[in-house]
Amino acid sequence: MTASSSSPPPASSREQVSQFMKQLQDQICDRLESVDGGSNFQEDAWDRPGGGGGRSRVIREGGVFEQGGVNFSEVFGSHLPPSILKQRPEAEGHDFYATGTSMVLHPRNPYVPTVHLNYRYFEAGPVWWFGGGIDLTPYYLFEADAVHFHQTLQAACDPFHPQYYPVFKLWCDEYFFLPHRGEARGVGGIFFDYQDQRPGLLYRPAGDPELTDLPGDSSLQKQVGERSWDDLFAFAQSCGQAFLPAYVPIVEQRQPMPWGERERQFQLYRRGRYVEFNLVYDRGTIFGLQTKGRTESILMSLPPLVRWEYGFEPEPQTWEAKLYDVLQHPKDWIQMQSVPQA
Amino acid sequence: MTASSSSPPPASSREQVSQFMKQLQDQICDRLESVDGGSNFQEDAWDRPGGGGGRSRVIREGGVFEQGGVNFSEVFGSHLPPSILKQRPEAEGHDFYATGTSMVLHPRNPYVPTVHLNYRYFEAGPVWWFGGGIDLTPYYLFEADAVHFHQTLQAACDPFHPQYYPVFKLWCDEYFFLPHRGEARGVGGIFFDYQDQRPGLLYRPAGDPELTDLPGDSSLQKQVGERSWDDLFAFAQSCGQAFLPAYVPIVEQRQPMPWGERERQFQLYRRGRYVEFNLVYDRGTIFGLQTKGRTESILMSLPPLVRWEYGFEPEPQTWEAKLYDVLQHPKDWIQMQSVPQA
Repeated sequence: MTASSSSPPPASSREQVSQFMKQLQDQICDRLESVDGGSNFQEDAWDRPGGGGGRSRVIREGGVFEQGGVNFSEVFGSHLPPSILKQRPEAEGHDFYATGTSMVLHPRNPYVPTVHLNYRYFEAGPVWWFGGGIDLTPYYLFEADAVHFHQTLQAACDPFHPQYYPVFKLWCDEYFFLPHRGEARGVGGIFFDYQDQRPGLLYRPAGDPELTDLPGDSSLQKQVGERSWDDLFAFAQSCGQAFLPAYVPIVEQRQPMPWGERERQFQLYRRGRYVEFNLVYDRGTIFGLQTKGRTESILMSLPPLVRWEYGFEPEPQTWEAKLYDVLQHPKDWIQMQSVPQA
Repeated sequence: MTASSSSPPPASSREQVSQFMKQLQDQICDRLESVDGGSNFQEDAWDRPGGGGGRSRVIREGGVFEQGGVNFSEVFGSHLPPSILKQRPEAEGHDFYATGTSMVLHPRNPYVPTVHLNYRYFEAGPVWWFGGGIDLTPYYLFEADAVHFHQTLQAACDPFHPQYYPVFKLWCDEYFFLPHRGEARGVGGIFFDYQDQRPGLLYRPAGDPELTDLPGDSSLQKQVGERSWDDLFAFAQSCGQAFLPAYVPIVEQRQPMPWGERERQFQLYRRGRYVEFNLVYDRGTIFGLQTKGRTESILMSLPPLVRWEYGFEPEPQTWEAKLYDVLQHPKDWIQMQSVPQA
């Protein structure tokens, strides 16, 4: 493999992507404020000592959202972490540029799922790539919601490559997984990283550029040909634009449902899994904390109120138990739409 | 350095230490139940598939303790993790034995500090060692409590070596530190690891057997001569026995103090730091989760209820702000007793 870049990004690449990421943040915040009806986002603009900065926006104690953060950032730096250099050794010794939008929303109503989104773009010397994804974490599972979410993502992916959705769906299931619980974080969505112009495997497992730990699942071993920067930017935009149609209809349908103390306690307990995933496994969070990123922006993903309970298990045959079953056995939500429910 | 072990442990070493660890668990649980007055410990005995087992005891919704866990475990295994093998390469390829007691208590009254204790003993082929420590995490700082806690630990250490307390106090400050917050977890205590018969430095930084990252602080660079297994076991016992006299008088003094919503909210917020430390930095927790330990016992250290708040900072000149000052500038609590308070 050489460091050559057969189709370099356009001269305005950084401006194009950062403008898109900013506009995505604006668009999402505007719509979520109108959905929420009770609170507005408060913005903190910040500069990074090493270069760059961002806009952190938080909504609290809203009509729908107990807490949520929607961030935009654009940073310049001189040292990519070893985990990234392992995937992109050509970046070694080069300054890097990174821009992205990230978001986590924690609704108050336990019937409304938590959602996470992150899309990002890197340039470093001769290499550049897009990465990111979106995933849904319900507390009480409505299968129709998971199907709608995945269908919307599939529709955003399919015009760009027929393998994007199926591969990135499995990658998401693999990434948002808590080994110590034997559970997925939620019902998934899509996740991808290191998407650039070079032909090869779509999927690239964490920490191993030579794919020696490629899982046996052949669904992940899909090849792509050369792709242009414009193609991949258009794909990332399509993913970003899919957020509101994927999530807002679910909020609008579940928010009016009445709930009580039982549902609240279960939600607070399950939020503990979100904390466990983000602090123990999430690469972005750990990388940010260890490289002295802006702590408050990084940890904005954590829920406002969380509980842990020793030895908790849901009672069999309950709605709560059904969630565990799905988290332990991730489903093909696209297939499910055509399968009559048992 | 050779793998030779000039003074091997006695034939009954495992039984002696595990009996002590069990008895320590019993003694601590008995006394804490009487201090609590409102609830009792519930025990789960468990077996480890790979060998060994333990007794996890949890107290919940007590008169004093909102939640607490006191664990004993004794495990046999075939693969020590790389982080330990780096410190004790002689253990490579050998089965290991480990026994210990660990504990975290989360009181309800915000004026009563959280406390953590963990003492452990390892054998693996030609090597063996003692490790562990204890540290105090107040929400509202009473300097007299920190002084009492440290004096009690110093008194437990001093009969064994005059450098134990000063070196292990600094090691504790270094270990229980959250870089992303620039804060100590609390007012510290003592911490040590890899204490065996071999002469050398008392202090051994994480992950580096050759001490290349030894900090500039010469207070840590203290040499010890050869120590016998009996000496070190007696020292570990003394540390374990110091728990009740170090902690219980603080509980008894602070528990009657009335508190309100402001103190409760600050306590729940600060508990978030405990979660951040345990999930992001604590070697025992991360090791346990990654090696498929018993998740419920490992995460028993997490608080029952926690909150995160974006951008929270204590108001200047308040009691809450005083805590931050101390966490950002760890103190010599033994010295303080003779210094008139400002």
